[in-house]
Amino acid sequence: MPLLVQKFGGTSLASAEKIHRAARRAIRAKLDGFRVVLVVSAMGDSTNQLIALARAICSNPPKRELDMLLTTGEQVSIALVAMAIDAAGHEAISLTAGQLGLVTDSVHTKSRIQTISRDRIDRELGNGKIVIVAGFQGIDESGEITTMGRGASDTTAAALASVLNAETCEIYTDVDGVYTADPRVVPQAHKIDQISFNTMLELAATGAAVLHSRAIEFAKKFDVPIHVRSSLTDAPGTIIMKETSGMEAISVRGVTLKEDLAFVELNAVPNTAGVAAKIFAEVARNHILVDDIVQNIYESGRLANLGFSTDASDASEARSVCERLIVDLGIGGVEIDEGVSKISAVGVGMRSHTGIAATMFDALSKAKVNIENISTSEIVISCIVQKEDGPRALRIIHDAFGLDEAESSSE
Amino acid sequence: MPLLVQKFGGTSLASAEKIHRAARRAIRAKLDGFRVVLVVSAMGDSTNQLIALARAICSNPPKRELDMLLTTGEQVSIALVAMAIDAAGHEAISLTAGQLGLVTDSVHTKSRIQTISRDRIDRELGNGKIVIVAGFQGIDESGEITTMGRGASDTTAAALASVLNAETCEIYTDVDGVYTADPRVVPQAHKIDQISFNTMLELAATGAAVLHSRAIEFAKKFDVPIHVRSSLTDAPGTIIMKETSGMEAISVRGVTLKEDLAFVELNAVPNTAGVAAKIFAEVARNHILVDDIVQNIYESGRLANLGFSTDASDASEARSVCERLIVDLGIGGVEIDEGVSKISAVGVGMRSHTGIAATMFDALSKAKVNIENISTSEIVISCIVQKEDGPRALRIIHDAFGLDEAESSSE
Repeated sequence: MPLLVQKFGGTSLASAEKIHRAARRAIRAKLDGFRVVLVVSAMGDSTNQLIALARAICSNPPKRELDMLLTTGEQVSIALVAMAIDAAGHEAISLTAGQLGLVTDSVHTKSRIQTISRDRIDRELGNGKIVIVAGFQGIDESGEITTMGRGASDTTAAALASVLNAETCEIYTDVDGVYTADPRVVPQAHKIDQISFNTMLELAATGAAVLHSRAIEFAKKFDVPIHVRSSLTDAPGTIIMKETSGMEAISVRGVTLKEDLAFVELNAVPNTAGVAAKIFAEVARNHILVDDIVQNIYESGRLANLGFSTDASDASEARSVCERLIVDLGIGGVEIDEGVSKISAVGVGMRSHTGIAATMFDALSKAKVNIENISTSEIVISCIVQKEDGPRALRIIHDAFGLDEAESSSE
Repeated sequence: MPLLVQKFGGTSLASAEKIHRAARRAIRAKLDGFRVVLVVSAMGDSTNQLIALARAICSNPPKRELDMLLTTGEQVSIALVAMAIDAAGHEAISLTAGQLGLVTDSVHTKSRIQTISRDRIDRELGNGKIVIVAGFQGIDESGEITTMGRGASDTTAAALASVLNAETCEIYTDVDGVYTADPRVVPQAHKIDQISFNTMLELAATGAAVLHSRAIEFAKKFDVPIHVRSSLTDAPGTIIMKETSGMEAISVRGVTLKEDLAFVELNAVPNTAGVAAKIFAEVARNHILVDDIVQNIYESGRLANLGFSTDASDASEARSVCERLIVDLGIGGVEIDEGVSKISAVGVGMRSHTGIAATMFDALSKAKVNIENISTSEIVISCIVQKEDGPRALRIIHDAFGLDEAESSSE
């Protein structure tokens, strides 16, 4: 019997009526002949409400206790969804990460999945039950409760779909798919019907908030298609899958805006072997997430300017780490700009289509948007700009790459 | 180093300020030289809010899922209290029932403690931490999440105090101790300074809501004094402890009112050996809590009328159980009165002080309160009355036993 994983985000569970709707979708899939596993997030705004409770107690709560607190949100959801399925006359059982056996490392608030046990879930599916799993959470090897970062319920869903060899991992959300740009910023943006794992990975990494990057990584590794679709309609959304032929015709597939970044610039870094490795080892050890890295050398290669972007929320921790590194490694200094955004164009063969970078820089220059840093890869070109320029810059490049005119598209 | 268990109820944790106050009490006890274990309930009204969420989904949620839902309330509290202690510069760690190893049977919503592991709690106390335990919840042997019934955080506290050989189990609440009657019903009621486990057991069993009966049973068995006191002041409350001498002078210690009861009357029950056993075995198997049992025989002992009181919420289940029993055992019929209350006088040597029952019946008769059923024991006399007569009947017997005049008292 084929297996389907369905993930429902917080907005799709924000009321009793929406919970019943999610339950009906799961039941319909079961009646269509699937074994069904649901992964659910915390209801509506409840994670933010729990964070507000914590902030009312203290400004910087211990991360272990924050995980203890936040995981209650998903536990509420699994119980309510199980009740809704039961009320509709079908059998269901809710499972916490601990009951399921979803084991992560011990990095509270930013843990990563290590192993997932199939035993319990297979047993419950074998008994004909719809299984409802709490997203976002895990337990470490000593039974401590962990979380995997905001939005990580997608990762739970994709990881389960991978381990269980699901036919598809459906992600139900409040938008009807992946767009060429965020429609709230770029009104001309349109839905993409199909997109490859790699292109979607870059869209997500550069700011498309519709799906968590690690979810796509899991699905890519195990070749499980992800279907991002609306919880309100039956219309198909965007299918994220293995690359198909005929892609090279389209270069830029979408543009993204990533806000709330800080750019950290280390000046006059001695350009000797191992210095960059030491810097980023220390940054990683402090669990600071690094976005892009840019390095330029000067003084005949003796010195380098080394910059990286990071979440604005990590900026103050990044500053103290860098100030220690300045002393330890003889670095000239550090400057941190906390008010920046990143705009990116994502597609296929960006470097082989030589005109793409030029088109982007030219359009931004004509619109008087100052580019602070540039980084490029095979499928992404990103520019750091001042936060206040971000939305306008996004609209400019969406138009410059001809995305305004395109109809619904697929690779 | 002596050990103190402090339990904080929902009203004592209803805001950030109250959580900080609970944290300060725990820290003060630690600075006074105690190892400290806190047991906490869900914040304020949050258990009722969770029940309302469930009721919005369905009228009769599966009990396993109700436990999954309700245990999140205590999990929120332990995390927030740990954060408050951390913010005050002291070390704390929160533990769920699963992490602690508090194992119950598998009867969802009404489970009972089977074993409590000391390993984890001893290790954390040994590291100098204040340990915060989620009340009300347990896990069964297969890791399913259970709850022990409303008010069972008291039981968690007393059971932990027993297992850990605590010096005292302090129960912080929104009243300043145990009263001769509920002051909201009987304005003349006054606080009791000391009371024996047995008398307190009867007060709780007959309706004094200040403390859960099973909590007193644990404390009695392991001889751990319970101190019921206000979370708002430092004034001493009521100490519940082993009997001391000089008690016989006082007969009635308090009067109680238990509302929301149903009285189940089985008529023309064949009075042969084993019939009553079969009836109550079947009632227990359906997890219907039986309050008092009253039986009278007639027709030269061939038939009996057998009645018992139960929670009004169990009335409909009691009806279907009894209707099956009528057929199986050849019983005449069943009548259930769902709108009754029980008033009780609790004290020491009620039977040896011959006038007590008469005083009670006489006072009620003069006030035209109709007594429906009577049951008595060594330390309790109870009468079932119509619900609307309950509060007035309570005030009448409080006065009739001279409790209106008494000053603060102790056994």
